[in-house]
Amino acid sequence: MNNRPLPSEFELIARYLAPLTKGFKGAFGLTDDAAVLQSRPGFDIVATADALVEGVHFLKDDLPASIAKKLLRVNLSDLAAMGATPHLYLLTLALSKELEEDWIADFAKGLAEDQKIYGVHLAGGDTVATPGPTTLTVTALGHVPAGKALRRSGARAGDAVYVTGTIGDGALGLAVLQGSAPDLPGPAREHLVTRYRLPEPRTGFGEGLIGIAHAAIDVSDGLIADLGHVAEQSDLSASIEAARIPLSEAATAFLAKDPGLLSTVLAGGDDYELLFTADAAKEGEIMALAKRHNLQVTHIGATGKGEGVRVLDPEGSPISLERQGYRHF
Amino acid sequence: MNNRPLPSEFELIARYLAPLTKGFKGAFGLTDDAAVLQSRPGFDIVATADALVEGVHFLKDDLPASIAKKLLRVNLSDLAAMGATPHLYLLTLALSKELEEDWIADFAKGLAEDQKIYGVHLAGGDTVATPGPTTLTVTALGHVPAGKALRRSGARAGDAVYVTGTIGDGALGLAVLQGSAPDLPGPAREHLVTRYRLPEPRTGFGEGLIGIAHAAIDVSDGLIADLGHVAEQSDLSASIEAARIPLSEAATAFLAKDPGLLSTVLAGGDDYELLFTADAAKEGEIMALAKRHNLQVTHIGATGKGEGVRVLDPEGSPISLERQGYRHF
Repeated sequence: MNNRPLPSEFELIARYLAPLTKGFKGAFGLTDDAAVLQSRPGFDIVATADALVEGVHFLKDDLPASIAKKLLRVNLSDLAAMGATPHLYLLTLALSKELEEDWIADFAKGLAEDQKIYGVHLAGGDTVATPGPTTLTVTALGHVPAGKALRRSGARAGDAVYVTGTIGDGALGLAVLQGSAPDLPGPAREHLVTRYRLPEPRTGFGEGLIGIAHAAIDVSDGLIADLGHVAEQSDLSASIEAARIPLSEAATAFLAKDPGLLSTVLAGGDDYELLFTADAAKEGEIMALAKRHNLQVTHIGATGKGEGVRVLDPEGSPISLERQGYRHF
Repeated sequence: MNNRPLPSEFELIARYLAPLTKGFKGAFGLTDDAAVLQSRPGFDIVATADALVEGVHFLKDDLPASIAKKLLRVNLSDLAAMGATPHLYLLTLALSKELEEDWIADFAKGLAEDQKIYGVHLAGGDTVATPGPTTLTVTALGHVPAGKALRRSGARAGDAVYVTGTIGDGALGLAVLQGSAPDLPGPAREHLVTRYRLPEPRTGFGEGLIGIAHAAIDVSDGLIADLGHVAEQSDLSASIEAARIPLSEAATAFLAKDPGLLSTVLAGGDDYELLFTADAAKEGEIMALAKRHNLQVTHIGATGKGEGVRVLDPEGSPISLERQGYRHF
């Protein structure tokens, strides 16, 4: 273990960050003013940025590798929602003076592991000290066939609404960490906490949705809120059937203990699954794509004329919900 | 005046940030998961990121419009150093809960003003709350003819070393703000403080250096340190003549009062001028380019074999300097 204070900016970059650029020549090993990316004829570039703040989005004692992965993955999830192939990222670190060298070493290790999984490379960034909480920003860049990026605004009336994976695990994991969830056996709690800490951006599947999905978004604000974004941008209404919402075993167990947690599942956010609409005639193609990515995809609802999002009970009657989604402030 | 607390994230984005995207369709008015940029055949994309932290890079009482401009300009300066034409930026705001709506309104106004000057547009980003100091990140994207980006590593032995504008104003302006500078008349102090707060990225001139300069960097760590980066990356030495370093009238007055401030001028950073090397035979072309941009350019030294940077007095003897450059921590 290495409990030394952080090394100087230049040493930190050379020791921990420059090695993360080795798969991308245009980063120049972080020795220049900026990175240079060759353009890919026939492709657009997709760019997104997300920040995580200590004490807000992660806790001081969270594992640095896990924080690094979440930081990268929430950005990759946005690329996935556009159907983009991840390529590069810029990383800005505002590091608390209380951090030790161990922290940054483990943080960089987490990034290195995820770079292999998702095929991305560090391209540049900035490293500064802060008297406040550690504040981390990633700007991620990816490619998408020109003019084909998936948008929130492309849904058509009568589309089927689909979602990948299971919904609510992230929000329930946060509830477990905050001590507000019912008492349940360890493995269920751990499953949910891991889902909160380590989202799995659906990058390959998102790319495959190009030409199939009419609209897509990643579930970060909450299922209802994010479906609301799609509906609003597409000038439509949407409805989902509560009973069809895919739940993990752990989430099912929590809901059985406290049915009131349904609003957490629907409105809680942090799922980082893909929510998309498509012609129901494409369902076979969608399920085949899902199978190729070892991914569960569930048909949960439909779009229609009008506006707003409704959640329906098994009798088709709307369920009223307290919370509509997560807001940062 | 509007001393209300910050509006909600969604209102803040709609009211103050979305209008900054109106010149760039691919931002989708900040209503989607990411921005989409069309690739420009024959051009590479240049990407850079810089962060500013309250209490470190700006003070709580600094004017928000001025902070916004500095944030954007330090990034544009990195693009200028690569010879790139600025195009877009992503903005990540971690906002202190103590801020009022006025602050963000004035901050956005500053961005809008600079967008017009530099021809850039907001493309995306993230807005979160922080319990700590306000922390601001910009990732700037620009274009450069394919394969032509200016690098730190391209200098050749025997190149002339040039610098734009005047050197030391930024560091002296900071010294004035910190109360560590000699007492001098108001206008001189104001000139230096303005230079510290509002750097002028040499974007147009930097673009013009493509095909002329062999290597370039912007002076942000300090003249000596940044020339050291060029020398190191180019595997050369460099020397500059102290008497040739271009000083503003205000800096000249300060140095006359306290000659010890020379080390602040040489090592202080925050100039955001361009430092570049070229064949001295190109000097006519360089000066013509400078004239077109209403910019002073000064031939201050030369590169040679070997390593390291020397500052020479009028007799050609090396001057020893205390500080070699600014380090963040």
